[in-house]
Amino acid sequence: MAVLFLTIPVFAQSTKEVSRIKADVTAVMDEQAAAWNRGNIDAFMSGYWNSSELVFVSGDTVTRGWQPTLDRYKKNYNSREKMGTLKFSDLEIDVISKNAAVVLGSWSLRRSNDNPKGKFTLIFRRLNGGWRIVHDHTS
Amino acid sequence: MAVLFLTIPVFAQSTKEVSRIKADVTAVMDEQAAAWNRGNIDAFMSGYWNSSELVFVSGDTVTRGWQPTLDRYKKNYNSREKMGTLKFSDLEIDVISKNAAVVLGSWSLRRSNDNPKGKFTLIFRRLNGGWRIVHDHTS
Repeated sequence: MAVLFLTIPVFAQSTKEVSRIKADVTAVMDEQAAAWNRGNIDAFMSGYWNSSELVFVSGDTVTRGWQPTLDRYKKNYNSREKMGTLKFSDLEIDVISKNAAVVLGSWSLRRSNDNPKGKFTLIFRRLNGGWRIVHDHTS
Repeated sequence: MAVLFLTIPVFAQSTKEVSRIKADVTAVMDEQAAAWNRGNIDAFMSGYWNSSELVFVSGDTVTRGWQPTLDRYKKNYNSREKMGTLKFSDLEIDVISKNAAVVLGSWSLRRSNDNPKGKFTLIFRRLNGGWRIVHDHTS
């Protein structure tokens, strides 16, 4: 019995499970974009792991922790005009375990004077409160 | 018995296993830096997943596949002088399953005329040939 159980890939993901994880992760990102586009950075931040261990990399700068990441967003986007309209696109979700996924995607802001855009790599983990970004590398 | 086995975290990593994974991942990166510093980009590339699904993100550009990533390196670093001396530092390895790890780190090149540097997020997976980078986001 022991051998039997150990050879069953208990944590391998079925197609159905992978689809469910991708839907859950996409939902978190949809909620983030919707929050941003309501001008609510605090709600946007609920997609991130509320931990001092959250990692946010942008260019050559590493911000550590949920609160410093929130502070950074609030400083860089200190008006509704600067926030503009956020769109995530080209999402590619790679489910790497039942509790972890990697997302490659594009972000863009539609603003009155410019349209900044870039790429991101996100590490999502399934935590007690659901799927959250634990590591964000944006460029 | 079934309940008993299913509640045992079969794939949870012991401290010893995590240490071993971190050592294996670090060894791959050490070999990459050593290969680079011998001027051997092909050997450097052996740290990457040899697949058309390899993802390499730099700034706003996504390069897909091992061969295009090799071509990009050879184009951007087409002389020993441009390659300079590569150093990886500040490595933080987060083991997220027995077959996957995320590495945050810094890279720098010491060259005669400049010293470019930046951050990277790497997704390593344990494949048949050992631990390989499957996704690299460098900025």
